[in-house]
Amino acid sequence: MAVAAALSERGRGRTTPNPNVGCVIVRDGCVIGRGWTQPGGRPHAEAMALKQAGASAGGATVYVTLEPCAHESPRGPACADLLVAAKPARVVAALTDPDPRTAGKGFAKLRATGIVVTEGVSADLAWRAMAGFLTRQALGRPLVTLKLATSLDGKIALPSGESKWITGPEARAHAHLERARTDAILVGRGTFEADAPRLDVRLPGLEGRSPTRVILSTRHAGDEGGWPVLASPHAIAALTADHLLVEGGAGAASAFLAADLVDRLLLYRAPILIGEGRACIGDIGLGTLAEAHGRWLLSDARALGADRLEIYERRR
Amino acid sequence: MAVAAALSERGRGRTTPNPNVGCVIVRDGCVIGRGWTQPGGRPHAEAMALKQAGASAGGATVYVTLEPCAHESPRGPACADLLVAAKPARVVAALTDPDPRTAGKGFAKLRATGIVVTEGVSADLAWRAMAGFLTRQALGRPLVTLKLATSLDGKIALPSGESKWITGPEARAHAHLERARTDAILVGRGTFEADAPRLDVRLPGLEGRSPTRVILSTRHAGDEGGWPVLASPHAIAALTADHLLVEGGAGAASAFLAADLVDRLLLYRAPILIGEGRACIGDIGLGTLAEAHGRWLLSDARALGADRLEIYERRR
Repeated sequence: MAVAAALSERGRGRTTPNPNVGCVIVRDGCVIGRGWTQPGGRPHAEAMALKQAGASAGGATVYVTLEPCAHESPRGPACADLLVAAKPARVVAALTDPDPRTAGKGFAKLRATGIVVTEGVSADLAWRAMAGFLTRQALGRPLVTLKLATSLDGKIALPSGESKWITGPEARAHAHLERARTDAILVGRGTFEADAPRLDVRLPGLEGRSPTRVILSTRHAGDEGGWPVLASPHAIAALTADHLLVEGGAGAASAFLAADLVDRLLLYRAPILIGEGRACIGDIGLGTLAEAHGRWLLSDARALGADRLEIYERRR
Repeated sequence: MAVAAALSERGRGRTTPNPNVGCVIVRDGCVIGRGWTQPGGRPHAEAMALKQAGASAGGATVYVTLEPCAHESPRGPACADLLVAAKPARVVAALTDPDPRTAGKGFAKLRATGIVVTEGVSADLAWRAMAGFLTRQALGRPLVTLKLATSLDGKIALPSGESKWITGPEARAHAHLERARTDAILVGRGTFEADAPRLDVRLPGLEGRSPTRVILSTRHAGDEGGWPVLASPHAIAALTADHLLVEGGAGAASAFLAADLVDRLLLYRAPILIGEGRACIGDIGLGTLAEAHGRWLLSDARALGADRLEIYERRR
């Protein structure tokens, strides 16, 4: 299942509105098929893996991060039907599909034909790999990641506005990788006007994976040079995106935190002290210190050149 | 030598003006003596270890973090003379004593009687363990550690001043342990007046290790309720202390950073965001971002309950 979850990551940010599923088919201790949801949502992971396995899938074990879909669509057959036809001995799944068109019906179809189904294996791993889709299903909005790149004392610029560079090339490359794994990127109007950021992916081979760009402006919604403008953080529900990366500046970051709409925090920190300068976030509506506690859990920490990345996730 | 360095840590903050040396005597693969400089500076580490080893020290190997002293004092004999009398086969030392009264003469005394001397073993480890003494010898001032306890965004209080608590009990206990390992603690007058901090060690068994307390006030030097008051960070040279812990607030922290008098940074961070609030440091005299880079190296990072501690050291 860990391999299936890793495969599912390949589709992250490119399968909306479909989930980025991962699938591995194993027979006699050998992997005979691997699949992940393809860009745009089709083929599904199971279809891809079954095609690789061919006739060998009969009697094999299929590992899949999400319940196989039970509903046919004009874009392809239901994965549950494909599995029934391939006759594996066993299907091991991490999560039930929250989509009401499947939601248990996929497992039922398999069991009805004698396939052994095991549910709930490595559910947490799979949840994290498909967090965008699952957040959209549960909350009707994309999973929101807030990126902050600061000094050790939480500053993003000198008083003059000088901000290039705080973090080094390794941290900036990692931030580009995060862009390639998201459907949409948002900046505040201030950052848009001051920095005219490109917000594209500038990693060799991944230039084609640049996400949709969005502006937050409480002054006027609409459109700005072809970029959609949202009037409030809550307007992200209308985006065709399961993953939104909020890149700055401090105003946009604060607005999303104040609205309690941040699920994931990417904190890139350079080993420098700035002192007087621009803070990474402003007023987030905190009344007491007690309100601040218990919200964030560290899920990853690593060195990126001279800098450190910490990833915090909202407690679920 | 790693064991000797660990033993030397037991004396840290309590041996000024003597170095906190560590010593291990080994014979036939067994440790037969262990010593570290005792509170107040005597007995020395070698004297303590030799006393434990007794006659067995003859032919043994002595590991010591600093060159044995060559000068007699009214408080005791020279360690080099004690070693010559004990007749070990070999002395392995990490560092040469920078004190001009010894500075090579200790090693010479040993070699003159046929003891094999190996110098420079694990010098970096020993340097770190005795950094306070060595900084005093090299720069004529104590080693300065700046403690900052902040939110992820570098804040130390809400706009109202509410600051209890940002970090949790494990981080606060660790900070008390740091107090027990320092000779002196400094706070700014603002913190002294606002918080009336006790600045003592409140760990069971270590209450007797509370350091000297000092106030920084650019307005007036002298004395405040029995606490000496320094008019500028540079005045620390006059303190009888090899280790100084600067505990806050932002004004004192900024003054020491602006004076380039911080050697070690203890950064305790709670997994919370505060947003609008009080910054951990103010103006530190930075002109450009380039000046900020290349000053700090991460030397340790660990979890303390829900919080994280990072220790940064000035690049040497």
